[in-house]
Amino acid sequence: MRVTERDPGASALLTDLYQLTMLKAYWERGMNAPAAFEFFSRKLPACRNFLVAAGLESVLGFLEQLQFQPDELEWLARQKGFPPAFIDWLASLRFTGEVDAMAEGTPFFADEPILRIVAPLAEAQLVETRVVALLHFSSLIASKAARCALAAPGKLLVDFGLRRAHGAEAGLLAARSAYLAGFAGSATVLAGQRYGIPTFGTMAHSFIQAHESETRAFLDFARAHPDNTTLLIDTYDTEAGAAKVVDLVPRLRAEGIRVRAVRLDSGDLAAHALKVRKILDDGGCREVRIFASGGLDEYQLAKLATAPIDGFGVGTALVVSDDAPGLDCAYKLQEYAGIARRKLSEGKSTWPGRKQVFRVLRNGRLAHDRLALVDEKLDGEPLIQPVMREGKRLAPAPALAELRERTHAALEALPEPLRGLEQAATPYPVEVTPALRALADAVDRRQAAVVEADRIA
Amino acid sequence: MRVTERDPGASALLTDLYQLTMLKAYWERGMNAPAAFEFFSRKLPACRNFLVAAGLESVLGFLEQLQFQPDELEWLARQKGFPPAFIDWLASLRFTGEVDAMAEGTPFFADEPILRIVAPLAEAQLVETRVVALLHFSSLIASKAARCALAAPGKLLVDFGLRRAHGAEAGLLAARSAYLAGFAGSATVLAGQRYGIPTFGTMAHSFIQAHESETRAFLDFARAHPDNTTLLIDTYDTEAGAAKVVDLVPRLRAEGIRVRAVRLDSGDLAAHALKVRKILDDGGCREVRIFASGGLDEYQLAKLATAPIDGFGVGTALVVSDDAPGLDCAYKLQEYAGIARRKLSEGKSTWPGRKQVFRVLRNGRLAHDRLALVDEKLDGEPLIQPVMREGKRLAPAPALAELRERTHAALEALPEPLRGLEQAATPYPVEVTPALRALADAVDRRQAAVVEADRIA
Repeated sequence: MRVTERDPGASALLTDLYQLTMLKAYWERGMNAPAAFEFFSRKLPACRNFLVAAGLESVLGFLEQLQFQPDELEWLARQKGFPPAFIDWLASLRFTGEVDAMAEGTPFFADEPILRIVAPLAEAQLVETRVVALLHFSSLIASKAARCALAAPGKLLVDFGLRRAHGAEAGLLAARSAYLAGFAGSATVLAGQRYGIPTFGTMAHSFIQAHESETRAFLDFARAHPDNTTLLIDTYDTEAGAAKVVDLVPRLRAEGIRVRAVRLDSGDLAAHALKVRKILDDGGCREVRIFASGGLDEYQLAKLATAPIDGFGVGTALVVSDDAPGLDCAYKLQEYAGIARRKLSEGKSTWPGRKQVFRVLRNGRLAHDRLALVDEKLDGEPLIQPVMREGKRLAPAPALAELRERTHAALEALPEPLRGLEQAATPYPVEVTPALRALADAVDRRQAAVVEADRIA
Repeated sequence: MRVTERDPGASALLTDLYQLTMLKAYWERGMNAPAAFEFFSRKLPACRNFLVAAGLESVLGFLEQLQFQPDELEWLARQKGFPPAFIDWLASLRFTGEVDAMAEGTPFFADEPILRIVAPLAEAQLVETRVVALLHFSSLIASKAARCALAAPGKLLVDFGLRRAHGAEAGLLAARSAYLAGFAGSATVLAGQRYGIPTFGTMAHSFIQAHESETRAFLDFARAHPDNTTLLIDTYDTEAGAAKVVDLVPRLRAEGIRVRAVRLDSGDLAAHALKVRKILDDGGCREVRIFASGGLDEYQLAKLATAPIDGFGVGTALVVSDDAPGLDCAYKLQEYAGIARRKLSEGKSTWPGRKQVFRVLRNGRLAHDRLALVDEKLDGEPLIQPVMREGKRLAPAPALAELRERTHAALEALPEPLRGLEQAATPYPVEVTPALRALADAVDRRQAAVVEADRIA
């Protein structure tokens, strides 16, 4: 297998160069005490009332297999600044640390860590870039998909985004995140093979155009897929297309072929759906469903809630999270060698130490969270749980279908104002405990003293 | 090598299910005459005056290696609707067609194809999803990066986006597109190994925080990287950090260590840069450059043009193309079995037939383009050129550095209003030739007759 056929996502070189330059300095000085890093979002985009944690399984898989390949080490050795002894040390580097995290599918809010890594400094630092990338993207899309699911209750939602996703891994992970957050499946075949996600597929306009007539195209497709026929009816004239379907259905039924649905992909979807529904119903095709696609997002889905449309394909807006294509998130050092740390940079200060999130429910709905120190004992469910020790998972990966059910329940438990598409009047309450505030103050005082001493020295 | 370690981007299953359902219908009916598909953008986002073509090399690499793997065929055979004879046919399927395309780095406009595939229908159809994904993403980022380069002439620009890129392939391809469009390099190490792109790396705040003092951290880092030291000075207090650098520079110089730059990553970058420049200059450190990062995009770069900042790291906004994370682009059937085709769907009609783009320059600047039929002979440079025949490249891939130089020249040749960040008062003129209009009319008349006949039948 050539180097270029390897999954770039599995490469230890898929990282920022500064991880390697820092590692070299740590290696030279023998700095490798335990470090605790946490991943969290500093603030939510205005267009999100909550985020949905995802990407943990990808992170654990990455950590388990992390190692530099021989060709990568040879290449690194040819770059300036990395001597042979350092390269040898990199060759033996594996992830041997601990991971604690929120379960995938858990709603989370600003400042709440969803994952903590505790490991020798070099290991915990090296994995930063990839850990951030995996948690960021999967959570980004799960959050967007959850909004779509909330906007279209009871509708069949399918991820149609592969072609506009930002590359191969994005397409795959978007399919997984969408399914996790309530989509019925994806058009992406590889997501079916890799994750067991249900796949959905119909036909493109090119199929209709390649045939001498629309009727001929419908017949060919139906005969090739007698159990699962969805016909795309908007290539030339949507209502005329629906009328052809009405003509064909009895003929196909006689051949044992069932037309399951028609698809609309252009124009005013609500108006077309009303007319098409009437044509189908008047023509004795009540069982033929209507599926719609084309530039849809959660706002469009909400507008189409009352249209006679049974399912939707959601593409670009979902897989690029078009209204918030990036989250303000970070993986920050919270503790090194047993001492809590906190960054002070303007506008970017963070809560120090190892933390826990306690979630309190009232009448089955989320009431408030507490951001606390990891050893505090408080009411509510502690959301951060151990998942990896000494570089090994504590349990096999949960089945995706099971995570999906738990995610559905978690979204149902969100307070009503957070479930809407518009910004909630008041954000969900996340209280910082007095103990955590006290630690932050102590860290600041200690650091101020160090900075002052550093200035005088 | 386990299946999950393979590059998902190389998988023939990284496609929409409808490609396979259509292929089955084509296979059953023996429909496999030559088809011509073209990729183009239907319209530019309001925040783009031009797009930059990219992704061709990825597409050619994908087409050359396209084939279903045994485990993929076994999995497909277990899905409903794909009989053994069809699976056998898929096993033998390779890409044997032709590709004509614009060179990477060429600016292009709405409706202009940047790539045409002519191949037996099944091959040309199957590759749609991946071809769109590769051209879309690489062109998206090259276009964004070109705006950054135009906004910051003479500055060193570095891609810092890997952690917020949408997955592994996005991070890699974004580094390549950014370099193509004028960036000096990337922080992504794997982009260095795979593409030979210069890599840049400094240190994270965690490096400073893990040390007992900022001075200690600076010393450790400088000694580990005597030839290439950039010190991050904003962890606690930016100006105090700069003062420490001034103190350390003579001491490090005596050890043979050169401090190349300081990095600012928070606060008001222009204000900090002014103060830091003065501290450095007053302290005899005129040679120490200032590098800035943190939430930058092309608009911020333009605002910082007069600040004493020598280089910038650009992250999220670049790699997710934050103001336009998706383009309205498509890969459309333009001709099948020798007959030109055109889709009529509302708001989505396209120019039929095989096309050429002729670009006319005046005084070294782009004057106008003509969108023409492929066999027209017109003034100007024909931008679509043959690159693949019978599934094989006509020439080895051009060196990326060479493409980068040509891209720079192409951006220099853009009319001044298009080079600004704001929307140009008038879009760049792309004229459709009378011959192309005549073909479109003929296609519409023919299709109207077919639709009418279909309705009557």
